[in-house]
Amino acid sequence: MNNLTTRLQSNLPSFVKLVEVGPRDGLQNEKTLITTAEKIQLINMLSEAGFLSIEAGSFVSPKWVPQMADSAEILQQIKRKQGVSYPCLTPNIKGFELAIAAGVDEVAIFGAASESFSQKNINCSIDESMQRFMPLCEQALAKNIKIRGYVSCVMGCPYEGDVPIAKVVDVVKKLLDMGCYEISLGDTIGTGTPLQTQKLIDALLNIICIDKLAGHFHDSYGQALANIFAAMQMGVAIFDTSIAGLGGCPYAKGASGNVASEDVLYMLRGCNIESNIDFDLMLKASSYISNIIGRPATSKVAQALCR
Amino acid sequence: MNNLTTRLQSNLPSFVKLVEVGPRDGLQNEKTLITTAEKIQLINMLSEAGFLSIEAGSFVSPKWVPQMADSAEILQQIKRKQGVSYPCLTPNIKGFELAIAAGVDEVAIFGAASESFSQKNINCSIDESMQRFMPLCEQALAKNIKIRGYVSCVMGCPYEGDVPIAKVVDVVKKLLDMGCYEISLGDTIGTGTPLQTQKLIDALLNIICIDKLAGHFHDSYGQALANIFAAMQMGVAIFDTSIAGLGGCPYAKGASGNVASEDVLYMLRGCNIESNIDFDLMLKASSYISNIIGRPATSKVAQALCR
Repeated sequence: MNNLTTRLQSNLPSFVKLVEVGPRDGLQNEKTLITTAEKIQLINMLSEAGFLSIEAGSFVSPKWVPQMADSAEILQQIKRKQGVSYPCLTPNIKGFELAIAAGVDEVAIFGAASESFSQKNINCSIDESMQRFMPLCEQALAKNIKIRGYVSCVMGCPYEGDVPIAKVVDVVKKLLDMGCYEISLGDTIGTGTPLQTQKLIDALLNIICIDKLAGHFHDSYGQALANIFAAMQMGVAIFDTSIAGLGGCPYAKGASGNVASEDVLYMLRGCNIESNIDFDLMLKASSYISNIIGRPATSKVAQALCR
Repeated sequence: MNNLTTRLQSNLPSFVKLVEVGPRDGLQNEKTLITTAEKIQLINMLSEAGFLSIEAGSFVSPKWVPQMADSAEILQQIKRKQGVSYPCLTPNIKGFELAIAAGVDEVAIFGAASESFSQKNINCSIDESMQRFMPLCEQALAKNIKIRGYVSCVMGCPYEGDVPIAKVVDVVKKLLDMGCYEISLGDTIGTGTPLQTQKLIDALLNIICIDKLAGHFHDSYGQALANIFAAMQMGVAIFDTSIAGLGGCPYAKGASGNVASEDVLYMLRGCNIESNIDFDLMLKASSYISNIIGRPATSKVAQALCR
C-alpha cells in the first residue's frame, strides 16, 4: 500500500463496540405497541448475537412514552449475559430510583446542543437540564453505576439549523464534569456529512479522549455510514445502531431513523473490524422484530439479503 | 485542525464531476416504458440542473433492451447544452455506426472483471469482449470521439463472489490501451466497502492517473456513500450517479440500484465540494421522473425533503 492509503487507515480501530439502541430509542418511536415478552425476546436475541451493550428501556413517565412503561419488568426478566451492559434512560431522580430498584447496571442522561431543541424536547434550557441531572449523577456515582451521556443535535437542529461546534463542546464538557464515562454524539436529524463529522470530533479531542466518544448517527439523508467511516478514521470505536433501523426522531422531517445495525456491521466486516457480533444471529433478531412490527427492516442489507 | 484531520482530508477534491446515468443505466432496468418525449425532457432538466455528463442512451439491439430503442431520436432531439457531454453505450460496430449517425459526442464500452459475469451478461469471455471493442475503438479514435470504459464487478461478482484486484487491474489496463480516456469502476452488486474501495484504487494507481478514474457505486447494501467518501479521500473526483436512484442491476440479489444523485450531491455540498449542480433543479428532475415511473425516488434525501 502506498503512503496515502496508510495515512487514511492508520487510525481505524481494530474493534468497534456497537451499542444496540433498538429496544429503547428504536421502539419508543414505533407506533405498534410491543408486548413485554416480545421486548424481552428481542433483547435476549441481541445479547445472543453478541452485542455488548443493549439499551433496555427508559424510566420516563408512561404518559409521555407508553411504549416504555414496562422497563422495570424488562430489566428484571431479561436473561442477563456476562459482560453485557443494559443501560436505561433516566430523565430525573424519580426515574433513576425506579431504575435502581429494577436492578439497572448503567444509566443514560441526555442534553442537547441546541437551546430550541432542549426547550421543545424536554421543556427546559440546556443549563436547567444539566442542573436537573446533577443530583442523579451524584447518586449514580455513589452507587458505582455507570452514566452514559447523550448529546442531541450535534450537527444540526430542526429549529435552529446549523449548530455551532462550540455549543457541542460546551455540553460534552458539562456531561464529563458530571461523571459520564462515555458521550454519545447524536446527529438527531441526520443532516451531518463526513467532513463535518471529522471537524466536530477534531474539536472535541481538545477536551475528551477518543475512547470516550461514541457516534449516534441517523440515516435520514443517507449519510450515516459515510459519517461512521469518517468517525472511525478519527479513531472513534463506539457507535449506537438500531436493529432493523427501528425508530427515528419524531421532530425530524422525513426521518428514516437510526442507522440500522445490519448496515453498520456489514461495513465493519468488509473493513475487517471486529465487533463480537454474529451476523446471522443479528439478522434473526432483525427479522423477528420486523415481523412483529409488520414492516420490512429499513436496513438495506436486511432488504438485500431477504430477497 | 490537528494533523490527523489534515491528513484525512488532504487529497479530497475541490470539484467533483457527477456523470448522470439515470436516463440510460437507470431507465434500462425500469419496467415502465418511458416515452421518447419524457426521456428528452428528463435529459434537458438534468442539463439545466448543471450535470456536465449525462448518459443519453444505448445503441444495443432493441430486442434486448426495448427501453433504449429510441436512443437515436433522443440524441437528435435533446437540447444540447454547451460543455455537456451526452455519452451513449455502444456494444459493437453496428451500434457505434448508428450512434455516430445520430451525432454522438462520446461512446462507452464495457468489460467485466469477472469471467462468469462476462459470459452471462454479454455471452463471451473478457478477452473476446475486448477484441470485439478493438475495431470500434479504432474508429472512434480516428473520428475524435471520446471513449469511456466501464468495468463491472470490481468489488464482487454475483456468480464468483470475491473478485481479485489483479483482474480489475488487467481489464483497466486493456481499456486504457484501447484508448479510453476515463475508466468507470462499477461495484455492480454493491457489496464493496470503504477499505476495499481504497485498496482497489491504491492498486490501480500503479497503472492509471487518478483523474482518469471514476467510481460507479450501487447502494444495494447501503455502502455507496461511504465508498464514495473513501474514494474521494484517494483523490477520485468523478462519480456515476442516477437521478432518483433509477435502475439497479437485474443480476444483483435485492439490488436497490445505482446510488442516487440526490444523496451524493447532498454529501458533496456538506463537504464543501463543488459540482456545478443546482440542488433544487436536480430535485425537480428527480420528482419529474419519479412521477412518471409512479414510485418515490429511492434517494433518502429526496424522501426526506418530499415529506
